[in-house]
Amino acid sequence: MKITKLPDLEKIPVAMEGASGAWKQVPISRDHGSPMFSFRVFTLEPGGHTPFHGHDFEHLNYIIEGEGETVDAEGARKRVAQGDFVLVLPGEKHQYRNAGNGPFVFICAVPKEYE
Amino acid sequence: MKITKLPDLEKIPVAMEGASGAWKQVPISRDHGSPMFSFRVFTLEPGGHTPFHGHDFEHLNYIIEGEGETVDAEGARKRVAQGDFVLVLPGEKHQYRNAGNGPFVFICAVPKEYE
Repeated sequence: MKITKLPDLEKIPVAMEGASGAWKQVPISRDHGSPMFSFRVFTLEPGGHTPFHGHDFEHLNYIIEGEGETVDAEGARKRVAQGDFVLVLPGEKHQYRNAGNGPFVFICAVPKEYE
Repeated sequence: MKITKLPDLEKIPVAMEGASGAWKQVPISRDHGSPMFSFRVFTLEPGGHTPFHGHDFEHLNYIIEGEGETVDAEGARKRVAQGDFVLVLPGEKHQYRNAGNGPFVFICAVPKEYE
């Protein structure tokens, strides 16, 4: 049982085009021997967001902290907050935006081939 | 983007032999179209625990709330708390125990074939 404490992990700036004020940590991945799936954690600063994009794999998300918005393929926004789960299907365009005054932190699980 | 709020989900008692004071919710699974992986949430009451067991698939865990202990294959106990991640490899015997006075709540992600 490999235990990882989030504050011990390096925060890497997200350099993808369309991302702003976004940081990544990777508590569970193939590098730890995970057979199929990885857990990344994204932190969005106030005003920060991920890219509005789609790809051929899914996201399984859990909101750890803060207030945010999802943006769906049609551009519709929905509020999400600590305790909410989100499933983004393969091919579905999506974005996460910080909608609060503090950090917005969420788990983004993906197949290990992607991270 | 399918958003699920944890309090909206039914809590199902865990009837497995060796479990005590344990409840399950399933926010993301194959029933929602997830291609590979499912997110379940377990709530252990004070004094509650999951079975001490092993199986041929992995767990990816995140502690949402409370204070608990992991028990590894050798029976060694380690404290875990809100914000910790745990990877349980296939075949590794393991158990979760509530070690606090309130609910101990954690995500347990598994391949969709299992749930």
